[in-house]
Amino acid sequence: MTMISKNQLKLLRALGQKKQRKAHGLFLVEGEKNVLELVHTSLSVRQIFATSEFLTKHLEELKGFECIEASLDELTKASSLVSNNAAVAVVEIPETQAPEAKGMMIALDGVSDPGNLGTIIRIADWYGIKHIVASTDCADPYNPKTIRATMGSFGRVQVTLLDLPAYLQQSALPVYGAFLEGENVHKTQFSAQGILLMGSESHGVRPEAKQYVTDKITIPAFGGAESLNVAMATGIILDNFRRQHSEC
Amino acid sequence: MTMISKNQLKLLRALGQKKQRKAHGLFLVEGEKNVLELVHTSLSVRQIFATSEFLTKHLEELKGFECIEASLDELTKASSLVSNNAAVAVVEIPETQAPEAKGMMIALDGVSDPGNLGTIIRIADWYGIKHIVASTDCADPYNPKTIRATMGSFGRVQVTLLDLPAYLQQSALPVYGAFLEGENVHKTQFSAQGILLMGSESHGVRPEAKQYVTDKITIPAFGGAESLNVAMATGIILDNFRRQHSEC
Repeated sequence: MTMISKNQLKLLRALGQKKQRKAHGLFLVEGEKNVLELVHTSLSVRQIFATSEFLTKHLEELKGFECIEASLDELTKASSLVSNNAAVAVVEIPETQAPEAKGMMIALDGVSDPGNLGTIIRIADWYGIKHIVASTDCADPYNPKTIRATMGSFGRVQVTLLDLPAYLQQSALPVYGAFLEGENVHKTQFSAQGILLMGSESHGVRPEAKQYVTDKITIPAFGGAESLNVAMATGIILDNFRRQHSEC
Repeated sequence: MTMISKNQLKLLRALGQKKQRKAHGLFLVEGEKNVLELVHTSLSVRQIFATSEFLTKHLEELKGFECIEASLDELTKASSLVSNNAAVAVVEIPETQAPEAKGMMIALDGVSDPGNLGTIIRIADWYGIKHIVASTDCADPYNPKTIRATMGSFGRVQVTLLDLPAYLQQSALPVYGAFLEGENVHKTQFSAQGILLMGSESHGVRPEAKQYVTDKITIPAFGGAESLNVAMATGIILDNFRRQHSEC
């Protein structure tokens, strides 16, 4: 077991920035639960930096990984987590291709908050959705805040940033778009395959993507709230979909 | 229109702390949307501190309120919001009594994150739930982070911190508790009135409250995620309830 170097600490800090992640082709996986989740993924892990306590506790699981010891203080300072961070991994950003449009998928238009994107990845994983396609101005799927909010689901859901209108245009699947004037999801007959298109909380789905919506749907409101958080709305619609189609 | 004083700025900063809120019987409502929401509530507003731009723009709506001008810089520094904050109101904490157990209600056991509590208040409001009862170790409903996450719903949903096991014991309503081993919510026949009991993400519902659960329910999982965020789970269960019972 070697100790963390100044250059390594510098790299950890640098990878908090999108530009640096792109330049290095690397991203950070922070927090104990997320780091341990890496064992079950096919992602290429460069190094795992962790406290001696964490490394000792998970010796068996971490066999085959390059592990480097660091103090809790060093790791917390280097990471974007505010509280104690016992483990950080440096992982290669995988090369992804636009997924074939099949099964149930999620499409995101301008969802720029990394926390929301991470929460959507987590709820997608809960409902067995494997692919999210997102407009290029969505939050970076490799932002540490996104990864953290996925609570380990980042390894099971592929997020691809792409030209969203072009993707929707070439897809033969129905596109379900969430709009206030849409059909009540409690009455909607969902098809077994389709794309659920969600817009940002502030702007909604923009016209360039909206033109490909085949089915407008809405979550019925019973009280005074004017809107729902985009991740919450995604979860509720997926639940309504899965009630009718349980095969993933 | 008067300008903000040093003592007033000091009060705004102080009200970020629970102890000070309790001592003064006051809380903060931050952000333009939340402050404008106050017009529609019966809450007693002491003062509204806002930029001259905000005050000019909303002159009509804010008639009858004591408005005090402050710079964007002063307001942002004094508030807990990281980004620009054009308006902050100082509001009296209302005296509340434990609500009568009727209709559909939410009970929270140990939900200590203010953001989660705020998001639950917002989704409760969406589904027309008027009352949340919460164990005394739940997040403070008057924490600025809670208020902010409600996105204006704080004025329509009453949250009462109380002795939760005692409350559940005296209630004659069915208590629906979310547990992994519960009945699939897609198959559950909900009664028109009931209490939805949710625990914290880390500890779940504790035994003291769990003993009063009459119906264990669960949200079916289809993928790899191990858990759902408590606010997300609350929203999905409320949607399943409202599908059967649309009267508020």
